[in-house]
Amino acid sequence: MNEVKYLNHIKSPDDVKEIPYKQLPDLAREIRSVLIETVSNTGGHLASNLGVVELTIALHRVFDSPRDEIVWDVGHQVYTHKLLTGRYDKFSSLRTEDGLSGFSRPSESRHDLFYTGHSSTSISSAFGLSSAKTLRGDKNYVIAVIGDGALTGGLAYEALNNAGRSRDNLIVILNDNEMSISKNVGSMARYLTRIRTKPSYFRLKAALEKGLNKIPLIGHRLSNFLFRIKSSVKRMIYGSTLFEDIGFRYMGPIDGHNFDTLCGALESAKMSGRPVLLHVNTVKGKGYDFAERDPSQYHGVARFDINTGEPICSGDNFSDKFGEFLCGFAQEDENIVAITAAMALGTGLKQFSERFPKRFFDVGIAEEHAITFSAGLTRNGMLPVFAVYSTFLQRAYDELIHDGALQNKKMVIAIDRAGFVGNDGETHQGLFDVPMLNTIPRITVYSPASYTELRHALCNALYNEEGVVAIRYPRGAERELPEDFTSTFGPYAEYGPHDAPIVLATYGRIFADCCAAVNELREEHGITARVLKLNQIKPISGEVIERLSGAEKIFFFEEGIRTGGVAEHVAAMLLSAGYRGGYDITAVNDTFVEQATVASQLAKYGLDKKRMIEKILGSVSLDGEKET
Amino acid sequence: MNEVKYLNHIKSPDDVKEIPYKQLPDLAREIRSVLIETVSNTGGHLASNLGVVELTIALHRVFDSPRDEIVWDVGHQVYTHKLLTGRYDKFSSLRTEDGLSGFSRPSESRHDLFYTGHSSTSISSAFGLSSAKTLRGDKNYVIAVIGDGALTGGLAYEALNNAGRSRDNLIVILNDNEMSISKNVGSMARYLTRIRTKPSYFRLKAALEKGLNKIPLIGHRLSNFLFRIKSSVKRMIYGSTLFEDIGFRYMGPIDGHNFDTLCGALESAKMSGRPVLLHVNTVKGKGYDFAERDPSQYHGVARFDINTGEPICSGDNFSDKFGEFLCGFAQEDENIVAITAAMALGTGLKQFSERFPKRFFDVGIAEEHAITFSAGLTRNGMLPVFAVYSTFLQRAYDELIHDGALQNKKMVIAIDRAGFVGNDGETHQGLFDVPMLNTIPRITVYSPASYTELRHALCNALYNEEGVVAIRYPRGAERELPEDFTSTFGPYAEYGPHDAPIVLATYGRIFADCCAAVNELREEHGITARVLKLNQIKPISGEVIERLSGAEKIFFFEEGIRTGGVAEHVAAMLLSAGYRGGYDITAVNDTFVEQATVASQLAKYGLDKKRMIEKILGSVSLDGEKET
Repeated sequence: MNEVKYLNHIKSPDDVKEIPYKQLPDLAREIRSVLIETVSNTGGHLASNLGVVELTIALHRVFDSPRDEIVWDVGHQVYTHKLLTGRYDKFSSLRTEDGLSGFSRPSESRHDLFYTGHSSTSISSAFGLSSAKTLRGDKNYVIAVIGDGALTGGLAYEALNNAGRSRDNLIVILNDNEMSISKNVGSMARYLTRIRTKPSYFRLKAALEKGLNKIPLIGHRLSNFLFRIKSSVKRMIYGSTLFEDIGFRYMGPIDGHNFDTLCGALESAKMSGRPVLLHVNTVKGKGYDFAERDPSQYHGVARFDINTGEPICSGDNFSDKFGEFLCGFAQEDENIVAITAAMALGTGLKQFSERFPKRFFDVGIAEEHAITFSAGLTRNGMLPVFAVYSTFLQRAYDELIHDGALQNKKMVIAIDRAGFVGNDGETHQGLFDVPMLNTIPRITVYSPASYTELRHALCNALYNEEGVVAIRYPRGAERELPEDFTSTFGPYAEYGPHDAPIVLATYGRIFADCCAAVNELREEHGITARVLKLNQIKPISGEVIERLSGAEKIFFFEEGIRTGGVAEHVAAMLLSAGYRGGYDITAVNDTFVEQATVASQLAKYGLDKKRMIEKILGSVSLDGEKET
Repeated sequence: MNEVKYLNHIKSPDDVKEIPYKQLPDLAREIRSVLIETVSNTGGHLASNLGVVELTIALHRVFDSPRDEIVWDVGHQVYTHKLLTGRYDKFSSLRTEDGLSGFSRPSESRHDLFYTGHSSTSISSAFGLSSAKTLRGDKNYVIAVIGDGALTGGLAYEALNNAGRSRDNLIVILNDNEMSISKNVGSMARYLTRIRTKPSYFRLKAALEKGLNKIPLIGHRLSNFLFRIKSSVKRMIYGSTLFEDIGFRYMGPIDGHNFDTLCGALESAKMSGRPVLLHVNTVKGKGYDFAERDPSQYHGVARFDINTGEPICSGDNFSDKFGEFLCGFAQEDENIVAITAAMALGTGLKQFSERFPKRFFDVGIAEEHAITFSAGLTRNGMLPVFAVYSTFLQRAYDELIHDGALQNKKMVIAIDRAGFVGNDGETHQGLFDVPMLNTIPRITVYSPASYTELRHALCNALYNEEGVVAIRYPRGAERELPEDFTSTFGPYAEYGPHDAPIVLATYGRIFADCCAAVNELREEHGITARVLKLNQIKPISGEVIERLSGAEKIFFFEEGIRTGGVAEHVAAMLLSAGYRGGYDITAVNDTFVEQATVASQLAKYGLDKKRMIEKILGSVSLDGEKET
């Protein structure tokens, strides 16, 4: 990497303001080089961050954070913001345990307003901030930066609709890079393309205003007056925009990589006196060829080689296997349709989208709609399969109840990234889907631990179950199961001596750890234990309770939230059935899990082989002491 | 009531088509009279149903249900549809146990597509239906009827955005009555007012087209051609509408009480070849003076006197008490702000909205936004209180996690209609909030059983807790508690002999039944039992586990979903702590609860005094038999 010239001197946004205006393009180049170098080592969100370098610099020139408050939607466009708010020296720790988060995180900096990892929240929370400011007589600005992808989420619209009637100093910056995570396919995207391609008169206007603003006092007012006149003229020529229809003053579109237009437009936006929507065109992946050419591929990346753009390691994974299996079934069954919420690549549906384009629906970042839309599809005889990350399915809780389970029609939910997700941290953990689905009547949930089991589960879900059926599987590859274990994929499976008094109960990926623990307990400690692995975690089969009832002590290991999870549900069934043995639950208890590797997260929460053995040994020796 | 002339002959929509066109206004009058008479007896949604009488008749004239599929948003505008699809003879059973539902319900009729009680789902599910039709080569129509209120929900926008790019035979009818449940205050409402008041040229057009359509073959095409020309002209004059911007063909606004324009417009909409949004102006409460004058009051009503419009019974209730208490606190504390999702009246916030208008936010039917907006308010020092029905809070599950609990800032959720809600049925039960909130780290949940306790809980939530605090209370009035019970409102309270071996554990409203059961068990059966009532149901205090550990048998009565509920959570805590007594859970297990009175629902699920006693006697005598 070239020598760092600016970033090591930037301790706060004030320092950004000290840099001579003409040198800003150099600063932008330096930032891009740091971004590419760092993300190639740590993995992370690359393309989105490369697109907002100039915009972020301009924001910190024109506004005074933290008095002015900048809210970054999703938070995966926040790297430059981190570099400009005193976090350059820690930047190499990005997305590592105890290091900088890949998202906005208040515990890191007073310039980060919220923990944000889910899409479409920024306008909503920014309007909350600005409403509070208005009530308190604080005239400083609140700025929300939201991508065109995030704008497909209903929450963004609810907020626009609500904020449009206010007179707050609220500026919404639409960072329009012509795609969200996947290529954005809704009508909003088409609409934005239409207004994007209208001949822009803004450059002239910005230059003029910049000149005018230099005239003390009267300059601002004159510029504001001209702005109004011109907006009216523009509206007459081009018609009003959707954003004006719902109450915002619309400005743009402007070039998001040009400091003159950016700074000019932001200064103009300040003078509006009511909420502004500033439409900024950016290029996702800007400045890194590979990312510019294929921004979807470089949205979220693992470590990669800078010169070739190739990922350093890769391999098979549950997502791709799911997509492959689904294509197999869809080849034979014309009723199968696949749905994604802007995550065709991440959820393994790319192949499906290419082979069966008519039966593939990318609904935008709209998990709620995905479920309710599926309800319509299934009502008219289709077999919808919605593939979604665990953490994003949380958005559709009500729809799962009201439009899914209550209607009692077949719908399959393929839940990817279930369990710990590693370096994406607090906002992305797949720890809630199980307790969430547990609360919903009639839903069936499968938890395969291997690709083979995933295929079984998918087949069952498509053809042997009724109503809403969910299948959950982790990020990454399957783990090695013991050679002497043969999966049958009934409601449960067992490993180890049939009558062993100690039982390790579990489901999903950590079954592998449980088996290894049982083997080591036998070989090294002479302790006989068995594993009961749930394949179907909702509803729990009565057989499972029977098999557990004979145990002396049950250790339930659950890679998920404890309260409302499977371990508690089984505990209640056992207690009601008269079980009087020991029961111990290891799960994530009443907390949010921070970023680290998955291995480290499993260890921290007692869910790897080593901690399982420690816990069982501790408990057994304690029992021994009691008895003697 | 006047003699029924039409409805007793209408067994299906075909019969509607047989009625001479000129007699349709008579049919409409007859329907209104039946609606007013029936709802005055049964309670229900009046104003919304009175507004769509002509629209519903026109739909069943122009389209062929069920081949053409009509989806009614929320479902509370579906009474006329029920009358026209063969359900007149059962109509007096509306909203009673085993009677007709007040919403759309597939088990009642093949003309009802979905169980719908939550807002903003219709476009989404209708687009699912139409996508399936398109895939299957079925050219019939799908029609979604959605109110302007429901259009403020993000799900409606997600669906519009997604459907706008299709070529399906999908017609969205915007039933614009200028308000949702409360007066609609978002920018969308203002926007609709603006386009509503543009001079409509539609009447002429519809008349012309009606004439043209009578010419065989060529007529339709000619009319379609003229329609396109005129739309273009109209767009040039008025500018495009928001709906056209996102891909729909926009038609309207038209008079929703005039059969000529309605039928003409619907016929035109059929010829579009792509999704249409037909904007229909209706008057909520049309035809009943009291309801026209105050439609919010007549949105959902209890039994009332037709001549005076006065409710037959009323009295105090938790909602009003909550509003009163909140005003008290807000009087002293300027930081308190109140938020409603279009339910100011239902949630008891009317007084607050009048006394503190600047600190009152009606965000539209947008529960997600309500939470994320609150996150912004609290980040800048306000003390937001969001009052919402339990069933609608389900919409905000992800926001409660991501924008609420994770941010760890103070936010109060006042959960109204918690527990059984009676005649609103499956879609509206407040049975999910407890298991839902149980899964979320750091959240505190209170469950007061009386007004006094509600005030205590609110005070604690505002000033003695951190993070997200929820307070849940039932629909209607407080119940009488035993005279010898004094509420202290610590984490739990007890009633009955301190050391009684049998414990009835519970929370909320049915505490009254538990106390009565304990007294009757003692007086009539010589059985000594006590009640442990949880005031704070999340987190569960260690003391509670201690107090329960000494029991011989615990009967947990929970007015909510069993899986993931408090009873299971306590069971797991007890089992892990070594409790070896009996444990029995009575709760709603893996099912949706149909409409009936609350008393009947409590009885059906074993949660009233009589069933509690039966269960305990049965269990005790069984234990006795075992022992002897």
